[in-house]
Amino acid sequence: MITTDILIIGAGPTGLFAVFEAGLLKLKCHLIDALPQPGGQLAELYPKKPIFDIPGFPSINAGELVDNLMEQIKQFQPGFTLAETAVSLTKVDEDWFEVVTNKGTVHRARAVAIAGGLGTFEPRKPEHLENLEFYEENGVEYFVKDPEAFRGKKIVIAGGGDSALDWSIFLSNVASEVTLIHRRNEFRGALDSVEKVQALKDEGKLKLITPAEVTKLSGEKKLESISVQTEDATIEIPCDAFIPLFGLTPKLGDIANWGLEIEKNAIKVNNALDYQTNIEGVYAIGDVNTYPGKLKLILCGFHEATLMCQSVYNRMNPGKKYVLKYTTVSGVDGFDGSRKQAEKAVVKKMD
Amino acid sequence: MITTDILIIGAGPTGLFAVFEAGLLKLKCHLIDALPQPGGQLAELYPKKPIFDIPGFPSINAGELVDNLMEQIKQFQPGFTLAETAVSLTKVDEDWFEVVTNKGTVHRARAVAIAGGLGTFEPRKPEHLENLEFYEENGVEYFVKDPEAFRGKKIVIAGGGDSALDWSIFLSNVASEVTLIHRRNEFRGALDSVEKVQALKDEGKLKLITPAEVTKLSGEKKLESISVQTEDATIEIPCDAFIPLFGLTPKLGDIANWGLEIEKNAIKVNNALDYQTNIEGVYAIGDVNTYPGKLKLILCGFHEATLMCQSVYNRMNPGKKYVLKYTTVSGVDGFDGSRKQAEKAVVKKMD
Ligand SMILES: Cc1cc2nc3c(=O)[nH]c(=O)nc-3n(C[C@H](O)[C@H](O)[C@H](O)COP(=O)(O)OP(=O)(O)OC[C@H]3O[C@@H](n4cnc5c(N)ncnc54)[C@H](O)[C@@H]3O)c2cc1C
Ligand SMILES: Cc1cc2nc3c(=O)[nH]c(=O)nc-3n(C[C@H](O)[C@H](O)[C@H](O)COP(=O)(O)OP(=O)(O)OC[C@H]3O[C@@H](n4cnc5c(N)ncnc54)[C@H](O)[C@@H]3O)c2cc1C
Repeated sequence: MITTDILIIGAGPTGLFAVFEAGLLKLKCHLIDALPQPGGQLAELYPKKPIFDIPGFPSINAGELVDNLMEQIKQFQPGFTLAETAVSLTKVDEDWFEVVTNKGTVHRARAVAIAGGLGTFEPRKPEHLENLEFYEENGVEYFVKDPEAFRGKKIVIAGGGDSALDWSIFLSNVASEVTLIHRRNEFRGALDSVEKVQALKDEGKLKLITPAEVTKLSGEKKLESISVQTEDATIEIPCDAFIPLFGLTPKLGDIANWGLEIEKNAIKVNNALDYQTNIEGVYAIGDVNTYPGKLKLILCGFHEATLMCQSVYNRMNPGKKYVLKYTTVSGVDGFDGSRKQAEKAVVKKMD
Repeated sequence: MITTDILIIGAGPTGLFAVFEAGLLKLKCHLIDALPQPGGQLAELYPKKPIFDIPGFPSINAGELVDNLMEQIKQFQPGFTLAETAVSLTKVDEDWFEVVTNKGTVHRARAVAIAGGLGTFEPRKPEHLENLEFYEENGVEYFVKDPEAFRGKKIVIAGGGDSALDWSIFLSNVASEVTLIHRRNEFRGALDSVEKVQALKDEGKLKLITPAEVTKLSGEKKLESISVQTEDATIEIPCDAFIPLFGLTPKLGDIANWGLEIEKNAIKVNNALDYQTNIEGVYAIGDVNTYPGKLKLILCGFHEATLMCQSVYNRMNPGKKYVLKYTTVSGVDGFDGSRKQAEKAVVKKMD
């Protein structure tokens, strides 16, 4: 069982920054995310694209912002349960909440901050494929959780966008054979990705089959081959894995059944105070919450995370008067023993 | 008369970032600040010190954050009235507010955002100096507004902290003679500033008189010399300017008389919606406002500025439904004709 002060569901920018603000208050955090990596929408949907409205950054790539946030919080040693979805939330007693994931991992915390964004990303699945569900545990993957798992394997990727292009490029150096299939012969993505795929194809490092569609999955206990329908033939391709990358749609999912007040697919919170939900001790911050005037922006999530942490601090230290400390003045003491601080002024005699 | 959409009183980080968010909504901004430079507390009080709690920056110097914000907003061509204090706010009619400064500059705007921080910085003045007020317009300066004004002049600086040290260093290259006076012989400041002053003194580029105090200002129509009392003598130093740098204290000042609800030296706002004050169309954002749970942090000012701009937009475009656009997706169109945008995806045939 994992125990912590604040359990954060969702490791997007809001959840990540919450770790920092909690750390300043000496509160420990643990994060759960359904995705295999931290960063939420930024890491999963647009890591290489620039954002222009993060205060202080005239432009910053989404992936770089996530890296910076990870660097900023590392001194507070957050725990991560990645590639698992939080499915239940229960109040154990006055002081503790329990959150369990789809893989059965149990977390207990003094407070829960739901920073679930638009929800978990559900893959758009290929249609009309018999036995798809059976193969989902046996060769069909919707996310590349660990590229190393494909080392030396024969894989087939399907899709025509950035994810299909980028993973084809990346895995062409890892897998023994990569085949990319798309139902049109036009791809839509960053110029350099499109060009790179064309080059890999020309060098024979990647097979391209377009326009084509996967029509059948075969194999006794696990995937052994797929059938591909092109304009004029049906081809059988032996493979160890089939990775359809047709895009993701976010679903609020189980969170909707936790007894929280939901409005427009988001969790209602008290924005006049601390972004707490109707369940005391449970907060909702970032894209996942709603209130009058709510804007689903990264910079708003940062503010909400900060006020949430203060509220948890007050809950956990009733009666104790909190005095705000500026990081510039007081420095930052990491849980890892590190200390960040401004250069101290010296008092010096001159002659 | 200066006219604009949103008149921002205070060019600290909050006021500056408001220009960006307003710009995204095609609203123009003009800023007034009592200080000669933008940046508020960051520029005036701790420009060279690191801040550790700006989201996405594990560490950033305050001065650098101000520079970044100026760079981020420049495409929206904000106007500036600097080194002037807003002294009155009046409602002209249903649509317009008027704000006048201590120098008589008149501004009209559709909405007013007070981002005045802790107020204007009032210099701590030297005590027991006869005729100080007379010389204030004639040789005594509490801020170095324009260093060039001292080129080739003889100046005396008094004080024992960072400002006194740093301006002594800077002006030793500009003025024909710099004398630094402090009532103790110990200085308190950044190590390199203290060392630099000692070196300049040793090279004969700066005169140091400690422990000592300025006891008299002389001169017919303007300052011509000062008297300095040391441990064992009174010295007369001919000079064109005397710059006492004894620190600043913030004062809410005239803002307190504008009919706004004030609590604990701050302006009460509606944090449950848009940070509007009791006067419709007048907002208060950043350190200057107060509400339940308020934290005087830079990152909170950014959020408040953003929601304020949305509210002004709704006021100015009643009935028009606003659809939030992501900067990453829609790009940013500057008022100067510039355009920032993510690299466009290409649609490309492959063979
Ligand atoms: C293409 C694009 C461009 C954008 N451009 C901008 C922009 O320019 N500026 C801007 O401010 N915003 C922009 N946004 C919006 C911005 O990405 C979101 O506001 C931001 O990601 C919200 O952060 P968050 O941490 O609240 O949620 P998210 O980033 O959505 O992260 C939430 C995380 O929670 C996880 N999660 C959800 N439910 C569960 C569960 N039950 N168990 C485990 N994990 C769960 C998800 O897997 C996800 O990783 C853009 C969005 C997109 C898609
Ligand atoms: C030493 C120090 C360290 C700090 N460290 C941190 C930190 O680590 N993290 C953090 O988040 N915050 C920190 N702060 C606080 C931070 O600086 C403030 O929260 C921030 O400056 C507030 O920004 P603002 O734009 O609201 O106001 P300010 O920066 O105070 O700017 C307000 C401006 O309004 C002007 N003004 C006021 N009234 C008038 C008027 N009537 N007419 C014209 N102009 C007017 C003032 O001259 C000023 O320039 C620190 C502060 C100090 C002093």
